[in-house]
Amino acid sequence: MSVNQLLQKAPADLPLLQANFGLERESLRIDKNTQRVAQSPHPDKLGSRTYHPYIQTDYSEPQMEMITPVAHSTKQALRFLEAITDVASRSIATDQYLWPLSMPPKITEAEIKMAQLEDPFEYSYRQYLGEKYGKLLQSMSGIHYNMELGADLFKILFKNSGYTSFLAFKNDLYLKLAQNFLTYRWLLTYLYGASPIAEKGFFEHNLKQPVRSIRNSRLGYANSTDIQVPFDNLQNYVSKIESYVQNGQLSAEKEFYSSVRLRGSKHNRDYLTKGITYLEFRCFDLNPFTNLAITQDTLDTVHLFALAMLWLDAPKDSQQTIEEAQALNEKVALSHPLEKLPQKAPYSLILEAMAELIEHFKLPLYYKKLLSQIKEQIKDPSLTIGGRLYQKIQQSSLEVFGQQKGQKYQDYAWQAYYALKGYENMELSTQMLLFDVIQKGVHFELLDENDQFLKLWHKNHIEYVKNGNMTSKDNYVIPLAMANKVVTKKILKEAGFSVPEGAELDNKDDALRYYAQIKNKAIVVKPKSTNFGLGISIFKEPSDPESYAKALDIAFSEDSSILVEEYIAGTEYRFFILDGKCEAVLLRIAANVVGDGQTSIRELIAEKNQNPLRGRNHRSPLEIINLGNIELLMLSQQGYSPDDILPKGVRVNLRENSNISTGGDSIDFTEKMPASYKKLAAKMARAMGAWACGVDLIIPDTNVKASQENPNYTCIELNFNPSMYMHTYCHEGPGQIITGKILKKLFPELNIHF
Amino acid sequence: MSVNQLLQKAPADLPLLQANFGLERESLRIDKNTQRVAQSPHPDKLGSRTYHPYIQTDYSEPQMEMITPVAHSTKQALRFLEAITDVASRSIATDQYLWPLSMPPKITEAEIKMAQLEDPFEYSYRQYLGEKYGKLLQSMSGIHYNMELGADLFKILFKNSGYTSFLAFKNDLYLKLAQNFLTYRWLLTYLYGASPIAEKGFFEHNLKQPVRSIRNSRLGYANSTDIQVPFDNLQNYVSKIESYVQNGQLSAEKEFYSSVRLRGSKHNRDYLTKGITYLEFRCFDLNPFTNLAITQDTLDTVHLFALAMLWLDAPKDSQQTIEEAQALNEKVALSHPLEKLPQKAPYSLILEAMAELIEHFKLPLYYKKLLSQIKEQIKDPSLTIGGRLYQKIQQSSLEVFGQQKGQKYQDYAWQAYYALKGYENMELSTQMLLFDVIQKGVHFELLDENDQFLKLWHKNHIEYVKNGNMTSKDNYVIPLAMANKVVTKKILKEAGFSVPEGAELDNKDDALRYYAQIKNKAIVVKPKSTNFGLGISIFKEPSDPESYAKALDIAFSEDSSILVEEYIAGTEYRFFILDGKCEAVLLRIAANVVGDGQTSIRELIAEKNQNPLRGRNHRSPLEIINLGNIELLMLSQQGYSPDDILPKGVRVNLRENSNISTGGDSIDFTEKMPASYKKLAAKMARAMGAWACGVDLIIPDTNVKASQENPNYTCIELNFNPSMYMHTYCHEGPGQIITGKILKKLFPELNIHF
Repeated sequence: MSVNQLLQKAPADLPLLQANFGLERESLRIDKNTQRVAQSPHPDKLGSRTYHPYIQTDYSEPQMEMITPVAHSTKQALRFLEAITDVASRSIATDQYLWPLSMPPKITEAEIKMAQLEDPFEYSYRQYLGEKYGKLLQSMSGIHYNMELGADLFKILFKNSGYTSFLAFKNDLYLKLAQNFLTYRWLLTYLYGASPIAEKGFFEHNLKQPVRSIRNSRLGYANSTDIQVPFDNLQNYVSKIESYVQNGQLSAEKEFYSSVRLRGSKHNRDYLTKGITYLEFRCFDLNPFTNLAITQDTLDTVHLFALAMLWLDAPKDSQQTIEEAQALNEKVALSHPLEKLPQKAPYSLILEAMAELIEHFKLPLYYKKLLSQIKEQIKDPSLTIGGRLYQKIQQSSLEVFGQQKGQKYQDYAWQAYYALKGYENMELSTQMLLFDVIQKGVHFELLDENDQFLKLWHKNHIEYVKNGNMTSKDNYVIPLAMANKVVTKKILKEAGFSVPEGAELDNKDDALRYYAQIKNKAIVVKPKSTNFGLGISIFKEPSDPESYAKALDIAFSEDSSILVEEYIAGTEYRFFILDGKCEAVLLRIAANVVGDGQTSIRELIAEKNQNPLRGRNHRSPLEIINLGNIELLMLSQQGYSPDDILPKGVRVNLRENSNISTGGDSIDFTEKMPASYKKLAAKMARAMGAWACGVDLIIPDTNVKASQENPNYTCIELNFNPSMYMHTYCHEGPGQIITGKILKKLFPELNIHF
Repeated sequence: MSVNQLLQKAPADLPLLQANFGLERESLRIDKNTQRVAQSPHPDKLGSRTYHPYIQTDYSEPQMEMITPVAHSTKQALRFLEAITDVASRSIATDQYLWPLSMPPKITEAEIKMAQLEDPFEYSYRQYLGEKYGKLLQSMSGIHYNMELGADLFKILFKNSGYTSFLAFKNDLYLKLAQNFLTYRWLLTYLYGASPIAEKGFFEHNLKQPVRSIRNSRLGYANSTDIQVPFDNLQNYVSKIESYVQNGQLSAEKEFYSSVRLRGSKHNRDYLTKGITYLEFRCFDLNPFTNLAITQDTLDTVHLFALAMLWLDAPKDSQQTIEEAQALNEKVALSHPLEKLPQKAPYSLILEAMAELIEHFKLPLYYKKLLSQIKEQIKDPSLTIGGRLYQKIQQSSLEVFGQQKGQKYQDYAWQAYYALKGYENMELSTQMLLFDVIQKGVHFELLDENDQFLKLWHKNHIEYVKNGNMTSKDNYVIPLAMANKVVTKKILKEAGFSVPEGAELDNKDDALRYYAQIKNKAIVVKPKSTNFGLGISIFKEPSDPESYAKALDIAFSEDSSILVEEYIAGTEYRFFILDGKCEAVLLRIAANVVGDGQTSIRELIAEKNQNPLRGRNHRSPLEIINLGNIELLMLSQQGYSPDDILPKGVRVNLRENSNISTGGDSIDFTEKMPASYKKLAAKMARAMGAWACGVDLIIPDTNVKASQENPNYTCIELNFNPSMYMHTYCHEGPGQIITGKILKKLFPELNIHF
């Protein structure tokens, strides 16, 4: 029984790439004004660190740690990291940013405030570490890469292995991987080392020259050299660490720092009975060339590297091999960033293993490309991250480079600030809710991405959410009622609310006879099930019998039932009601431009479309205003051509309808709307039994008070799954928090606040 | 100010026909064995008479009263009556039927047990009536016709009237209608009188000859002749009745029997301040030629008659006119059924009024037809109901005719006993639920018929139901989860249940790579969103790579995401779970016939299709088996042609699939299914959080016990809005009550039992 040569004997169709990944990235919060480490506490917006799964603090209060959930691919892991980074960046104070480098900016011990965690052990452990290693060293940041081989992969390999115990097999396989990782880690230090210099005051004596990775050298944050733990045998590994803890050389098992760590249990001894679940690779410096501190290529190259570590045989004398490798790594880490790998570094072995892997398992071309990249970087050190970083230092200084990059990434986070980076393909309301979910530390899973179907949970409490506000809080039949105009109207009317008078008619004879009752009224004739406004005729003045008959024909051509309703004049407002309370009021006005006496209508539209809130296909809070046939017609009806210069202050509408989807403006009317109408709309939603509900009211004059007796309003529609983003990110007005309130009500136990 | 000539001056487009209607029909329960009045109590199935809005008892325990809710047309009123009659007929003991005649069969006072009502006043009032009028008279039955003029009609007439008080106008209009009704009611007695003879023992002395309407004569159930109430003036009307009650000539205001009664308040005096709401016409004998005791034509003719009563001026001296009319009515009622109207009867006046109405308001042709019918019936008494009934008596006897008709109507009620008469256009499950609703006395309104959207209520408790089981009991997001196969599978899997293993794949490369993991398995390849089974490939044996690749192409051509799942062999069962409990288990088998050694397959199919449970378009519990191309192919694959005689006991399937919709058989497996599986399915629905849920399990062997550890089952689907009728009306097995349990759970306060 051996775990060597296993891959070589495995079938080509082995699911080799199957694995789970997790990333943990540390980063210091920086105060823009002082360009030093922020002195403010961990952002209050991020909820409680006692349970937050995604955003924590590492050693010190300003040292954020961004932790992805378990991902089933490197792509998914990076996507998680992107979203969490986005949330973290937009949750810190507006005059702060995240430091993009592993090495801190100029810093003193006094500036490093220990993380204010509630757990007394965590607090005293940090105190101990600060005293033992120095607080300055603790302010270095890195990125940890967790990897678990896939279940199917393990199953097949086990079957082929000859092992009888799956546990033993698994432990042996992971241990072999760890040994080889330690044996060849110097290649990763070479490729990804990016901590070249320390700012003044960090070390007692400055380095003579920039190096590849202070953090991955003995100068970095490491155990003292007398801590030597064997990786050849799990029993020995466990016992050795335990003995260090017993004799006080380590304060806890987790104080053993290795560039690879066995993971899955709190106590090492449990690996003997429960098995190692996954490995943690801890050697990665932050890559300052990306806001996420690690790239997709790196993630996949490391994955390929780890697989190569499985392909290669384990070292014969692992203890000695690893010690030699340690020395080699030290050399690489402390070499000049433009220096090549030492001659004796056996990189060809690794490259060959990778090539054989790719060949044997017919991996996609992409992996060949990654392998070429490694080869080029070995050939030319200036292509490595360390090499590239050195060039930047030459141009100015590491600190200035860090400041520039940090600022840039922070600005990027606030670009399209309504969206959640990595999830822009999803509906905007779902992106907004996911932002809140990550910010407040609620666990999430995309059960079906295209279907906008989320699972959210905190401890044992699970909630499912579809399309942002379809939840367990509404009962099944009420949204179905709201989907039916006739049913909604009947329920509202029976509850005493003002709805357009009218009739549902299912044949033309009855409909013609009904004319007598509406002949003096402004009316709307429409098919019962309206789709995209097809078949609707509006008579703002009473209709003549012929036009009415024609309107009936049009409506009946769309549906076997039609509605003839009174036409209600006045301004339409959308009330967003949640759990019986009005949370927002919106006024929507038609796509328009306002003249300045100098600019043509065409240019005014182009200018207005510059607003970052405007985009396409409901992935932005406002839509781009088109200048299409409908808009041109509308202009010409008003006597304008698009190249006319519009007089100062004159507003021209480009559309008849006020939909946001056709370029309309959203105006937050929440503060301006009198309370009586807000209460009224809330009362309607309650009468309907709806939890999340959009109430459309036509109000001729909001200065006249609403009452049930003297309505002064007409409810023209209730909406289930009402749009949320348009209330939050408005063309005009402050905007209202909506998705956050949904989350707060779904998880009242979290005491979410804004 | 006058209410005369109002209609004549009204515009032609007046909504003249706008009115509300309500019917109350009495009928005796008859014991089939004795052919006498049933001695059993009011059916227990009908819930409680303390609140039942639709089915009550009138004077005596066997005298059912069927009461429609307020209907907005005569059509709707008759439809209500049809449904309520259907429910009443199927709720009485199977050896009983409803007596179709106004005159009872042979009956003695001893047989007439007073209605066992809880209200002590109602009980003592009946005791008093029995003593005063005799219990035999109380056993006559009739049908009451309630009518309220439309709100718009009233509004317009009021506007044209010159009245200043709407209340005074309304009261005057109804009072005029009542006066004219009493003046001309003899025409209705002539047209609809249908109580020609009394059985021996009913009267002291037999009538000399059959008459038109005993019930509408002085021999019927009427006040003593010294009760004379004026209709010319509401104040006088109210005072007079009050004085009769005060001096004890009447025990209560409601003891004043008139063929027309003012309605809307409990106490007459309230009409002076609140107004008359509607009128009750009480003169209609049961029409034995229809199971509903009144026809659509009669309803509309009476409506037309009532409108003619508005058209005609009020009598100058109403008191005297009404007295004379009373005498004329008496003469008509007691004339021979084949005798014409008396010469002096001024029927031309009425006919002219009707013709003028029709002309003036351009009423549809239908009303002209009704008018012609009246004219022909006046010309030829044998065309009246009384005349037709007389001919039937001549053939045998009234009693035998009543028995035959009553039996026939009862048989009719049990035809297509799964449906609710009058509502056959609705989904079967909704019909079944409505049956229960009417039976148990829950109020209902069809909010949207095409949408199967019901409002149900009892006192202040409202429940909405769509499609039979979409209710407030389920939360919104769970059915949405069940609508998504992938989401459902994830939730069930996370809860530890056995679901088909597999993967969701969104590109062909990944899908091809996945082959390695399924190459030894039976699999199903399908588009994620399956529509009508398009794009599905099943490999019951492991597939070769080429066929697999082809199946991928087929699936990807339907959807951008596909599922590759293991194929599960075994028998599929549907479990109906309600509120965490398994209420039914169904086995569905493919459309098939079983040979008898004599009959061809074609004939066997035709025979099987004779089953009244089989119909078309899901309006019956089972579908007609077609002999189309698919069935012919399936036969030929088995070596049969449709004209082959099938050997005795041999079963031939006509379909591969076992859907009920393609003629499959439903087998109630509830009793046969081991409890462990029923519990398991219920647990799944609970884990999902579903209230009403169909769980589809494949179980290879139901003799092997199910457990979560050792599944022996696979859940292939959860269904929201699961079909209910197929569990209740099965091809084989007893069938289970489902809709009734839905209702019971929606209204726990009613203590519904079955």
